[in-house]
Amino acid sequence: MPVGTQGTVKAVPQDTLESLGAQIILGNTYHLYLRPGHEAIRRMGGLHRFISWPHGLLTDSGGFQVFSLNELRKVTDDGVRFRSHLDGSSHFFTPEHAIDVQIALGADICMAFDECTEYPADRPRAEESMRLTMAWARRSLDHFRAHSHEVPWFGPEVCCMQCFGIVQGGMYTDLRRQCAERLVEMDFDGYAIGGLSVGEPRELTLEMIAETLPLLPKDKPRYVMGVGYPDEIEQYARMGVDMMDCVLPTRAARHGLLFTSEGRLNIKNKQFAEDQGPLDPLCDCMVCRRYSRAYLRHLMQSSEALSGTLNTIHNLAFYLGIMRRVRDSLQSESTAPVLDR
Amino acid sequence: MPVGTQGTVKAVPQDTLESLGAQIILGNTYHLYLRPGHEAIRRMGGLHRFISWPHGLLTDSGGFQVFSLNELRKVTDDGVRFRSHLDGSSHFFTPEHAIDVQIALGADICMAFDECTEYPADRPRAEESMRLTMAWARRSLDHFRAHSHEVPWFGPEVCCMQCFGIVQGGMYTDLRRQCAERLVEMDFDGYAIGGLSVGEPRELTLEMIAETLPLLPKDKPRYVMGVGYPDEIEQYARMGVDMMDCVLPTRAARHGLLFTSEGRLNIKNKQFAEDQGPLDPLCDCMVCRRYSRAYLRHLMQSSEALSGTLNTIHNLAFYLGIMRRVRDSLQSESTAPVLDR
Repeated sequence: MPVGTQGTVKAVPQDTLESLGAQIILGNTYHLYLRPGHEAIRRMGGLHRFISWPHGLLTDSGGFQVFSLNELRKVTDDGVRFRSHLDGSSHFFTPEHAIDVQIALGADICMAFDECTEYPADRPRAEESMRLTMAWARRSLDHFRAHSHEVPWFGPEVCCMQCFGIVQGGMYTDLRRQCAERLVEMDFDGYAIGGLSVGEPRELTLEMIAETLPLLPKDKPRYVMGVGYPDEIEQYARMGVDMMDCVLPTRAARHGLLFTSEGRLNIKNKQFAEDQGPLDPLCDCMVCRRYSRAYLRHLMQSSEALSGTLNTIHNLAFYLGIMRRVRDSLQSESTAPVLDR
Repeated sequence: MPVGTQGTVKAVPQDTLESLGAQIILGNTYHLYLRPGHEAIRRMGGLHRFISWPHGLLTDSGGFQVFSLNELRKVTDDGVRFRSHLDGSSHFFTPEHAIDVQIALGADICMAFDECTEYPADRPRAEESMRLTMAWARRSLDHFRAHSHEVPWFGPEVCCMQCFGIVQGGMYTDLRRQCAERLVEMDFDGYAIGGLSVGEPRELTLEMIAETLPLLPKDKPRYVMGVGYPDEIEQYARMGVDMMDCVLPTRAARHGLLFTSEGRLNIKNKQFAEDQGPLDPLCDCMVCRRYSRAYLRHLMQSSEALSGTLNTIHNLAFYLGIMRRVRDSLQSESTAPVLDR
């Protein structure tokens, strides 16, 4: 899922996202709550309509931004008090409020309010944080079930909103297990594995996913939050992960870091100054078909807006291409005739 | 002609320019000379190929930027010494060098090197500046004729490069007349009226165009540089002006000033915060078809890159739409059956 923090996948028009084959994008509740405000978006018919995206849409719970953007936050059992990074104003998010905001935004999928456990966290800290997340998950789901009919949708194309729970537990497999089991008992519409990609070594990320994934029902979406590099997302998808989101392809693109079939390259490098070849000779995205590395480097060196747009389009094409290939190969595996038992 | 200063119409991909119907764009010689450098562009096959724009392309002479971006410039009969706004390095442009740079860039149309007379300028100053421009026009054209075969083109689609002369003369109609007559004697491929839109009142701009235009051959392109507002470009086109360029639609767009069939609006205004209508109800551009004023305002308030892209696309659609309508109406006038004499 490309990340569209403020209701836009940075620098890419919606029709381009469609032609790239993006099926679902992510909006950040924290950002949209502060600006333009969830009530304004509700009055305008919800986020799909506001940003003109009649496709899949997921909002995060706001928890991650509250924790990552706020040094002065104050957490209690009831919720989190934080200050706006825009104007310093004080706000208080409870699980109920986070769900209310998400219902106002009216994405297809909303997320239970959670505390994203920092890394490293010792066992008592991870356990306490997980218990808070579990209590908030319960309250989120109850509130969601009582109020999900208040979504501001209209039009026949959309049927119902879903709510996903988030597994926390730090880097402790038994805490992850406990957390997953309790969430599954609550019967969410889908399950996310959160609190990864927060600074831990990659083997730990993999271990946590490998241990947690089998505990989550296969017939519901399983979503790993905040990952990853191209080889990671392919690996996780092959393990059975259905959904992932990450700012990496879009943020890296804006800094000139581009993913290609030949590996990563930094388009700012002088070696590309007169390189008339395409960014990635094996990619057929609109950027690789039309522009040279030399031109992309020139745009970046000149701080031109088109640089961010073209770089982002390519990185998203690369990421979405990986997922398409994985899907195709899983499908052909599952439909292949069994020749030999 | 949309302006593509550094080899990109700011924030708009080339395929979008094509779908908007842009037939020709402008590149700034001064900027491209400094970065990435005209020799690099020559080695890569010229500007069309470098920026992937297989359509009309015009480069200005560099004169305007040398004069407008350089407070420390030093003008002699031979040329202009100036400092790069990028790194302070010292450069010297003669008419011959300006043409050499433009031949390396290899646009379809290059411009004679001129001095853009400032406003206000008293008569002796305007006269002296005009005489300098005439001497430089002669040298530009001679050098162009001797070297235009050195363009870096390849491919069969392009036939030949053209060179236009520029009429100066400040706000003195007799100087404009003298200047136009001498340029026409030199027999350029087309003629521009320069030194307008430099701070003078609009009636003066109109007067200078009205006085100068009839002196320029009707069977060659007549180009007014650096204009203008939507009603101006319509008026000038109806007077017989064939070409115009202006940063106004693109630069204004990035600042939120949008041109519509209902007049100008500033999309930042609070009144648009929940306005779900299209930017311009009579416009069928991709922005007006898909996005609301509220969303465009949100993008601008959030400093999102997509803001510049969408605003610019609309303003260009509006400008190009005006020119299309003028062309259509001139054509139907010229082909309409004469029912009544």
